[in-house]
Amino acid sequence: MQVSTDGRIRVCYTLTSDGGESAESRARQIALEQTVELPEGCYPREIEREVVGRVEAVEQRSAARSVVTVSYPVDLVGTEIPALLNILWGNISMQSGIVVSDIELPRSVLDAVGGPRFGLEGVRKICGGIEHRPLVLSAAKPVGLSAAALAERCATLARGGIDAVKDDHGVMDQRTAPFRERVRRCQDAVAEANGLTGGDTQYFPNVTAPLDELDDRVGFAREVGCHGVVVSPFLTGLDALRRVADSSEVAVFTHPTSAGGFMQPDHGMTPPVLLGTLLRVLGADGVIYVNAGGRFPVTEGACVEINRRLTAPIKGIRPSVPIPGGGVDVNTVSHLVRRYGVDVMLLIGSSLYDQADLEDATKNLMHELERRSDG
Amino acid sequence: MQVSTDGRIRVCYTLTSDGGESAESRARQIALEQTVELPEGCYPREIEREVVGRVEAVEQRSAARSVVTVSYPVDLVGTEIPALLNILWGNISMQSGIVVSDIELPRSVLDAVGGPRFGLEGVRKICGGIEHRPLVLSAAKPVGLSAAALAERCATLARGGIDAVKDDHGVMDQRTAPFRERVRRCQDAVAEANGLTGGDTQYFPNVTAPLDELDDRVGFAREVGCHGVVVSPFLTGLDALRRVADSSEVAVFTHPTSAGGFMQPDHGMTPPVLLGTLLRVLGADGVIYVNAGGRFPVTEGACVEINRRLTAPIKGIRPSVPIPGGGVDVNTVSHLVRRYGVDVMLLIGSSLYDQADLEDATKNLMHELERRSDG
Repeated sequence: MQVSTDGRIRVCYTLTSDGGESAESRARQIALEQTVELPEGCYPREIEREVVGRVEAVEQRSAARSVVTVSYPVDLVGTEIPALLNILWGNISMQSGIVVSDIELPRSVLDAVGGPRFGLEGVRKICGGIEHRPLVLSAAKPVGLSAAALAERCATLARGGIDAVKDDHGVMDQRTAPFRERVRRCQDAVAEANGLTGGDTQYFPNVTAPLDELDDRVGFAREVGCHGVVVSPFLTGLDALRRVADSSEVAVFTHPTSAGGFMQPDHGMTPPVLLGTLLRVLGADGVIYVNAGGRFPVTEGACVEINRRLTAPIKGIRPSVPIPGGGVDVNTVSHLVRRYGVDVMLLIGSSLYDQADLEDATKNLMHELERRSDG
Repeated sequence: MQVSTDGRIRVCYTLTSDGGESAESRARQIALEQTVELPEGCYPREIEREVVGRVEAVEQRSAARSVVTVSYPVDLVGTEIPALLNILWGNISMQSGIVVSDIELPRSVLDAVGGPRFGLEGVRKICGGIEHRPLVLSAAKPVGLSAAALAERCATLARGGIDAVKDDHGVMDQRTAPFRERVRRCQDAVAEANGLTGGDTQYFPNVTAPLDELDDRVGFAREVGCHGVVVSPFLTGLDALRRVADSSEVAVFTHPTSAGGFMQPDHGMTPPVLLGTLLRVLGADGVIYVNAGGRFPVTEGACVEINRRLTAPIKGIRPSVPIPGGGVDVNTVSHLVRRYGVDVMLLIGSSLYDQADLEDATKNLMHELERRSDG
C-alpha cells in the first residue's frame, strides 16, 4: 500500500460496465454516494470543495472495464474504523459492478490504528524463533468435541511437532466445550506436550465473541499463558480486530469466515486489498486466507498478491504473517515453499485429520517441510 | 419466519448450479463446511449425529436452480450472534452460487435475543401517536456541515412537520460536527421547533462508533432526551445492534450501508431474510432499506417481502417498522401508501433537498401524505 501524503484517503475502483453510463459519470456518482448522498448541487458550495469525493483519474481499460480513482478527505473518517469502512465500501456496496482494487491511507490513520503489534518477526519469536522454514499451524477440531477431547487433539499435534494449534473458527463457547474450560485445558495440554518434547508449540484460542464478552475472553487467554488468539472480524465487525490488537498483549490472527460477500469477483474488495492491506492495517499479526487448491475458488496469483501486501514495507506498520489454509499437504509442501517463500505460516487441517494417526501425520509433514526448506 | 420447535436452526439455501455437482452433494458439502469443516468421515461417529448439519430437503427447481434445507443443532450457536452469523453465512460465503433464502430459529434464540424493544407500536407512540398514515423520516445532511448547520436543518424539517429526522449515516464524529455537540444542538433545535409548532418531531442521532465508544454515544443520546438512535450494523458488526437494543432504553433504527456484499443476487442472503428477518430478531425497531425506484437496483416485490417479514406475527417478537428509503417524493406518495400500506416509515432525503425551500417542501409532502392517506 502507498501511504497517502496529502491527507486524503484514495480508493481505486475497478468498474464493470453494463454498457450504459460512462466511467466518468459512475466515478462521480460514487464520489457523491459515499459522501453527501445527495444529487449534484443539492448542497452548499464549500461542501463540494471540502467534502465530496474527488475523481482523480479515469482509465478505460476495455469496453466493459475501467479503473477510476476517487479520493476523500481523511476528516470524514478521523481514525474510526466504522467510518473508514463506510468510506471504502458503504452505500455503493448496494450497487453492482464495483470493486475496490487499491487503497491509500494517510499517515494519521496508520499511526492511530497501528497495524500488527507483533507481526511476522514477533510471531516467529513466539513460535520458538524458527526462521528457516514456513511456520505450520493446525486446528483442534471439530466443534462438538468436549474440551478434554479438543485438548487431547492439541496435545497430539504438539507431540507431532506442529508450531501452533488454534481452535477451529466454529469453536466458540458451546456447552460441549465452554470457553474457559477449553482454553485452560488446551493450553495446559500443549504446555505438557512441550515439556515432553522440548518443543515450543503454541495454542491460539478463538476469542470471537459477543461484544460484551470479547475483552474477557482475550484477558482469560492471556491469563492462562496463551501468546496469541484468533478472531473472525467478519463475524464480530472489523473494529473488534482493531480493539483486540490495541488492548491486548497477545498476537491476533484473523479467520476469514463470512468475508465472502465482501469479495465477490465483480463487486466488493479484492482479496488482496481486504485481507492483505486492510486487515494488516487494523492489526492482524497473522491473516488466515483461503489458499488456491483447496475447497474454494481462488487463484494462486491472488494468494501471492495477498502475501505481498501483508509483508511489503509500510513505514511504521509491521508485516503480518500470511496464513494460507487449504490445499496444503505433504505433497504440496515443496511447491508452496517455492511459490510463497518461507515467510508464511501454513494452515493444515484436513490433510492431517484424514490420516489414521494424527501424531504421525504431523511428524511426517514437519519432517518433509524441514527437508524441503533445507534443499 | 417460522419458529423452529425442535431445537434446530433451519436454513433454506437457494443454489445456482454450474452444472457440475448435484444439489444433494452440494447440500451435504454445506452441512459439513458450516460445522465440522472436515471431509466426510474424518470425525467421530457421534459428531455426525450431533453436530454435522442435517440435509432435510433437496428440491430441484430447474436445471440451474435448486432449494435445499439444512438444519443445525442450536447448541452450535447458543445465543451468540457471531456464532449465529457463522452458521448462517460462514465459510460458505467464500464459495459461490449460494443464497440463504429462509431461516427458522428456535424459541431459545428468539427469547435470548429478544427482538425490538419498541417495535412498530412503540415507534408510533414516540412519534406522537400517529396511526392513520405512514410516518415520515428525513435526514440532516450532508456530512461536513457544522453542528449548528445540521441543527438548523433539523429545525427546518421539524417546522415542516416531519415526524422524525435522523443523522445521515455518514455523520459520525467528524471534527466539523463532533458527536456530543451535534447531538445536543440537533436535539435542542428540534425541541425548540416543536415548541413553536406544537408538533412532536423526533431526532435520532447516528451512534455508529468504534466499540469503545458505542455505549457512551447511546447513553449521551438518551441523556439529552432522544428517544431513538440509528446504527449501521454492517459497519459495527451485527452484534452491536443486539447490544444497543438490549442495553439502551431508546428505539434503534438500522441503516444498511455496507450490507450489499451480503445480498448479491446469486450469493448471500436475500434482502428479506437479512433485513426483514435477521435485523428484526436482533432488535431493530425500524429497518431502513433501499426502496425500489431509487438509486439502487431493487424490485418492489422484494420491498413488499421485506415489509412482510418485518411485520408478520412472530410470537414474542414485536413487529419492526419498515423504512423504505429512496424513490419517495410528493408524486410517489400515494402509490407507496397503496403498495406498502400505512405501517411503514418513509425515508425522504434528496427529493426534499433538491427543492428551493426545505421547510415548504416538507410541508407540501406532509400535506400530500395526509390527503392521500385520508382518501
